[in-house]
Amino acid sequence: MPSEPSDVTGPAVVTAGIVIIGNEVLSGRTQDANLNYLAGRLTELGVRVMEARVVRDEEAAIVEAVNHVRTAYDYVFTTGGIGPTHDDITARCIARAFGLPFGRNAEAQAILHDYYKGEVTEARLRMAEMPEGAALIENPVSGAPGFQIDNVFVLAGVPRIMQAMFEGMTHRITGGAPVLSRSVAANLAEGTLAGPLNDVQARFPNTEIGSYPYFRGGKLGSSLVVRTTDAEALDQALAAIRAMIRELGGEPIDEDDAPAMNAPRG
Amino acid sequence: MPSEPSDVTGPAVVTAGIVIIGNEVLSGRTQDANLNYLAGRLTELGVRVMEARVVRDEEAAIVEAVNHVRTAYDYVFTTGGIGPTHDDITARCIARAFGLPFGRNAEAQAILHDYYKGEVTEARLRMAEMPEGAALIENPVSGAPGFQIDNVFVLAGVPRIMQAMFEGMTHRITGGAPVLSRSVAANLAEGTLAGPLNDVQARFPNTEIGSYPYFRGGKLGSSLVVRTTDAEALDQALAAIRAMIRELGGEPIDEDDAPAMNAPRG
Repeated sequence: MPSEPSDVTGPAVVTAGIVIIGNEVLSGRTQDANLNYLAGRLTELGVRVMEARVVRDEEAAIVEAVNHVRTAYDYVFTTGGIGPTHDDITARCIARAFGLPFGRNAEAQAILHDYYKGEVTEARLRMAEMPEGAALIENPVSGAPGFQIDNVFVLAGVPRIMQAMFEGMTHRITGGAPVLSRSVAANLAEGTLAGPLNDVQARFPNTEIGSYPYFRGGKLGSSLVVRTTDAEALDQALAAIRAMIRELGGEPIDEDDAPAMNAPRG
Repeated sequence: MPSEPSDVTGPAVVTAGIVIIGNEVLSGRTQDANLNYLAGRLTELGVRVMEARVVRDEEAAIVEAVNHVRTAYDYVFTTGGIGPTHDDITARCIARAFGLPFGRNAEAQAILHDYYKGEVTEARLRMAEMPEGAALIENPVSGAPGFQIDNVFVLAGVPRIMQAMFEGMTHRITGGAPVLSRSVAANLAEGTLAGPLNDVQARFPNTEIGSYPYFRGGKLGSSLVVRTTDAEALDQALAAIRAMIRELGGEPIDEDDAPAMNAPRG
């Protein structure tokens, strides 16, 4: 996989783009859970997710999004649109994006026959239609496999199935230096912290410091997250942040930087 | 606002694109909740969300995403990156995207002085920096306003603040014909339904029929969702779907098409 010089987190960064496919996410019917899962796991694997696109079940939209991200980033993950119904058009669109022939994959067909036994319908066999040369991705939950073409991994949309597919194929991903992440909370508003925090960020240019306001028990506070591949810089930046909080009259509270629900920045 | 001939849902469609800004969403730290909220509310208001992009806190990425969606769609909504800290760069990027001067907005500055009283810091006043000509969007939760430039609405990232901002500005949006949506569940797998469902979709070309598999109590079923601006076509397509389910030996169950968590298609 190609790599490139990093701006802030180390010598080599491995990147990914994610394409979430499905009208149901864009109509508000469904709260997507796949981006958050993939982003968290890829981060753990040393892969930096650079962007995500949510697109409709429309060929032109899918082809354009996939062709953009597959040339811009090392890895691409798509979710959704690989079931048996008329609105499942992802596989055909991936073939179109790569300019590859599209047809029934013999190995996938055998898996479907084995999984459904006597109940293989023509519709179900649509799930064996893939770009020529696809490498299958096992689906331990519901049979029908996903697939990989070049740097693009095509996964299911149902979170339980998507996650099982992903966990079975992580050996195909080579991450860069893992990004270390630690978080310190302060009972201070962002507006109080912002000036001094800007100075800390400037002192540690190979870290990425994020600031995320929160309401807890009716009180405003801020979570300050340091991310870097450099363990020493991580410790130094954290020490500087704790000292800054105390100087401002606050109390630093070490946090787990576990994924937090519903707490993006203002 | 420009409108265009619709493919499936009526004479005129009003469209939107959404840009979610923030490294925390792409690192997996934060589960975004803003796309789902905006998508659901815009659908109710007769606006069709065509795509969403999740981008990092990087100027080039934000400018490129905003410039794409603002020319492609009638309305654009951004969330995140308008706080007081160094990683809040959305306002500056919007000015760059439009090629507008960027500086302190007098009205926003007055709001901040009024809200923070004696505690206005230089950092907080950064939240008054906007593209020239911005129309403010009120923030009843935490003072600092969002803003509108042309067809782009710049909102906060904290869901509670974002939602309050949005609900206070819906009068600035003119939707198209509202999309009617109804859902029927069947205790049948998608592979059983897919062939006949394809025929129903072909018979009602001005509806959009989505199929979403689910597991409930360990059993596989499918939710079939019909969306259209044509009330008569909606009724006819639903009747055809119910008849199809019975013909296949299943039992149609009318559902609310309320937003469902974690149930995208496979």
